[in-house]
Amino acid sequence: MLEAIGQYVTRLLSELEQTLSIPTSFVVIEFLGTFAFALSGIRLASAKRFDLFGAFAVGLATAVGGGTIRDLLLRVQPFWTTNAVYFLCCAFAVVWVMAFRRQLVRQQNTWFLFDTLGLALFNVIGIEKSLNLGQTWWMAITMGCVTGAAGGVIRDLLLGEVPLIFRKEIYAVACACGGVVYILCRHYGVPGSLNAAVAILAVIATRLLAVRFHWHLPTLKGE
Amino acid sequence: MLEAIGQYVTRLLSELEQTLSIPTSFVVIEFLGTFAFALSGIRLASAKRFDLFGAFAVGLATAVGGGTIRDLLLRVQPFWTTNAVYFLCCAFAVVWVMAFRRQLVRQQNTWFLFDTLGLALFNVIGIEKSLNLGQTWWMAITMGCVTGAAGGVIRDLLLGEVPLIFRKEIYAVACACGGVVYILCRHYGVPGSLNAAVAILAVIATRLLAVRFHWHLPTLKGE
Amino acid sequence: MLEAIGQYVTRLLSELEQTLSIPTSFVVIEFLGTFAFALSGIRLASAKRFDLFGAFAVGLATAVGGGTIRDLLLRVQPFWTTNAVYFLCCAFAVVWVMAFRRQLVRQQNTWFLFDTLGLALFNVIGIEKSLNLGQTWWMAITMGCVTGAAGGVIRDLLLGEVPLIFRKEIYAVACACGGVVYILCRHYGVPGSLNAAVAILAVIATRLLAVRFHWHLPTLKGE
Repeated sequence: MLEAIGQYVTRLLSELEQTLSIPTSFVVIEFLGTFAFALSGIRLASAKRFDLFGAFAVGLATAVGGGTIRDLLLRVQPFWTTNAVYFLCCAFAVVWVMAFRRQLVRQQNTWFLFDTLGLALFNVIGIEKSLNLGQTWWMAITMGCVTGAAGGVIRDLLLGEVPLIFRKEIYAVACACGGVVYILCRHYGVPGSLNAAVAILAVIATRLLAVRFHWHLPTLKGE
Repeated sequence: MLEAIGQYVTRLLSELEQTLSIPTSFVVIEFLGTFAFALSGIRLASAKRFDLFGAFAVGLATAVGGGTIRDLLLRVQPFWTTNAVYFLCCAFAVVWVMAFRRQLVRQQNTWFLFDTLGLALFNVIGIEKSLNLGQTWWMAITMGCVTGAAGGVIRDLLLGEVPLIFRKEIYAVACACGGVVYILCRHYGVPGSLNAAVAILAVIATRLLAVRFHWHLPTLKGE
Repeated sequence: MLEAIGQYVTRLLSELEQTLSIPTSFVVIEFLGTFAFALSGIRLASAKRFDLFGAFAVGLATAVGGGTIRDLLLRVQPFWTTNAVYFLCCAFAVVWVMAFRRQLVRQQNTWFLFDTLGLALFNVIGIEKSLNLGQTWWMAITMGCVTGAAGGVIRDLLLGEVPLIFRKEIYAVACACGGVVYILCRHYGVPGSLNAAVAILAVIATRLLAVRFHWHLPTLKGE
């Protein structure tokens, strides 16, 4: 049974690799990133005592919400509709939360790392997809931010919370930094794959440094 | 005046019958289902002291929200944009709530029945629309759930509540059961209309049994 | 620096004028309306102590949200994706709130006026865009309301509030009045530009009179 699922997921991942024409390492990162995003939604849902379906739905919305809004705005087919791997990834995340409930706090740093990796990769995927569709540079940066950050906004709305990224975390700004780096590299003729790697590093660096040194944006003072 | 409205609605319904090419009984169920969905939104809005416009808007969002999200994800024209009957149905539901305010509690069981009928029919409409557009079986089941359940999520968000279906009701799961039954019947060559009938019965049975025997999904324990 | 930005904005505005083929005065009104919409989002965000990015995001969602939902429902390219002026306008609104924090209360009436002007113009833009795409008259009125009012609903959801326009303000109803006036004028053969002007005046008059005389819609009584 488990073996059959494993083979099925492997097949889906290799299809994904062909469809997106990205290297294997990226497919693995995308899978881990999706898993980490789903996990963040499911954990918050379980804290609010959602049932199994609710937790799965919030996890899925967190993981694929950003890319879905990007695809709707770009008027292309939502990316998750052609490959079942995203659904399986979220279902797997629900099982993980049920099985390793007590260990999740200890795994915190691991998931933070995967979440950051996912953010960086989703950002670059959003940027490249937009540019390939002939969008302008500022639309590409925006769509990169939307891909990375909108899932978390949907998650917080479904949980009845004011979106976290509007108040505290350097999250969308990390995406924007990565986007600017990508566009600048491209402008100065850096070759495509190096481009992506530098942008991914920029996002990761910005986020890790922000968390390490408690950076945050200035808060607007109320009247 | 009333007669003229009656004739207009009858004409719209017969147009709908031709457009969707579904039997008359289904058009009547769709009308009653839309009405029951709108009613649930309007009643909750009136409990929050929304004004007439707010109640109408929430009713409309509850009734057509699920199908709209489905159509956006499938990249086809939103179903309610070509026939004014859905708007009239919601306006009629507002009038109903104003006129029969005191009787609504007594009518509870009737509306629960229509709501369940509507859920079952919307689910099958979502499944068939997806399959006709060449989507995979798992996308069809998902789009069936979205058609049936997303309207209620939008309703709860507009009312400032955490979506009910994430925490308590067997609602989306009833849709998923109906979807699996539909796909299995189709796989084993059951003819089209019987297919739909069996799936509709599966949704109704799941929901009624769940309410009768207080079934609910396990809740995820928080950390 | 400031001069360069000024020249850039002027160029974007003149491009907008050509794309939309509307008179210069309308482009100026659209800019002021967008600014006023963004300002309302940013001020409420600052009252909730959002950071700079959050305030910008809420301002942008308020300003372009209604038109975006309209364009998604009509299945055309979101209007703000082809011209950077809307982004600059929102960024400028953030700077304005930071610079003139203490004066904003005194500027209240000015911004209320621009907000009303924006509402009226956005409404007519929504109506005309829908009619040009071959939609029916009731869809045009609906899309006019969506263009004018949905931005405020998104703003309130992002801020964790129950949407204001569902409970208090004559806002969407002013749009609907303007829409009915537009459609009636068109039906009786009033020439196009006069049509738009009369509808704009109808929206402004409805809203100003509603605020002046404390008009509001009846509230639905809860059960």
